[in-house]
Amino acid sequence: MNVGRLELEELYAEYVAALDKERFEDWTGFFTDDCLYRIVPRENADRGLPIAVMHCESKGYLLDRVLAIRKTAVYAPRYIRRMMSNVRVLGWKDDLLAVRARYAAFETLRDELTRVFSVGEHRDRIAVVDGRLRFREKLVVFDSELVPNSLIYPL
Amino acid sequence: MNVGRLELEELYAEYVAALDKERFEDWTGFFTDDCLYRIVPRENADRGLPIAVMHCESKGYLLDRVLAIRKTAVYAPRYIRRMMSNVRVLGWKDDLLAVRARYAAFETLRDELTRVFSVGEHRDRIAVVDGRLRFREKLVVFDSELVPNSLIYPL
Amino acid sequence: MNVGRLELEELYAEYVAALDKERFEDWTGFFTDDCLYRIVPRENADRGLPIAVMHCESKGYLLDRVLAIRKTAVYAPRYIRRMMSNVRVLGWKDDLLAVRARYAAFETLRDELTRVFSVGEHRDRIAVVDGRLRFREKLVVFDSELVPNSLIYPL
Repeated sequence: MNVGRLELEELYAEYVAALDKERFEDWTGFFTDDCLYRIVPRENADRGLPIAVMHCESKGYLLDRVLAIRKTAVYAPRYIRRMMSNVRVLGWKDDLLAVRARYAAFETLRDELTRVFSVGEHRDRIAVVDGRLRFREKLVVFDSELVPNSLIYPL
Repeated sequence: MNVGRLELEELYAEYVAALDKERFEDWTGFFTDDCLYRIVPRENADRGLPIAVMHCESKGYLLDRVLAIRKTAVYAPRYIRRMMSNVRVLGWKDDLLAVRARYAAFETLRDELTRVFSVGEHRDRIAVVDGRLRFREKLVVFDSELVPNSLIYPL
Repeated sequence: MNVGRLELEELYAEYVAALDKERFEDWTGFFTDDCLYRIVPRENADRGLPIAVMHCESKGYLLDRVLAIRKTAVYAPRYIRRMMSNVRVLGWKDDLLAVRARYAAFETLRDELTRVFSVGEHRDRIAVVDGRLRFREKLVVFDSELVPNSLIYPL
């Protein structure tokens, strides 16, 4: 199970491309069936507090979340552009590869200028399933005490 | 014609360095003579609408554009800082390599704080000319309905 | 002394991780004992003006700086998130490898939204010490005429 840095960078590039193009069903394909996906404010993550802004305990939960996004049309249309960089490989433990990568997400509402939406870090545990990299755990830690009221889409 | 990810990342790093340092003449050297360079709002790109904010149909057009920038001194002085990341290689077609990369550009006017200027994606078709990578097509898609009134410099 | 692009990207990823987590003592470990660390506005760097916003002439100076940060508690708590990308290798000279990389830093104050804090470029000269990469010189050039009044932490 030799996973190189380049392979990881490709993984993250594909990941953000799926999200930015709102291919949310494809996005769920980046996870294992028994995945854990959470978005947590940095202070909570640092203190070990359990409160999450988004919390999905399996791929089924992720699909439910996607369905909710698709069905709900009350949001003002917007583009989110995610950039990920500075991948760090922490090492293997129990067949899972621990990886860190940082992100910046930019939001553009119709007729408004682009602004910083959220920045932070992905803390991931990656499994190899049938030769492909899949997220078994993804903890998205964002640098804010504020819970953005527009955190509709995954990061 | 084996082009690796690292070679592409070097290409984009050199590309943004030329632009940020306002070496616009060098910038035209990244293109083939018969290039197509366009900057298009994302909605237009998604809908296939032809309207572009910047449109150059050859390296000669690019050089004209550079000349216009050099001759026009009515703009308030500013720095643009471009970052590119998450390169994705889509594959070869007709001797051209299709590549995607995302960008964030930051603008700093004199005596003002830095702000987000534009974010989006480069959709490129790259040729190998005398062993060097050159852009045959570069479509810069930016996430905004607004046309920035300060889109003077290329992206 | 063959240093690859991937090795450099790992170096910068570790560098920003140490700073963002406020492991400032670890941060000094990225430098040689006789290092030169400076943060300079872009205009000063371009004109060769000597004025720096931060200036440390050895690892001892860096440690003094860290001590000052640790002892001073008058700053409003904030998170800084640094992203680095587009590494460019300029080449070796006198056992030092000249490297450029660009950065964007985002600041999040408690109960405020994240904003762009600073963008610019690292202009580095890297030594190999006992087989590890260490900064002999790091010149951080930021795109602003304004000196941010909150430039407390290193970049």
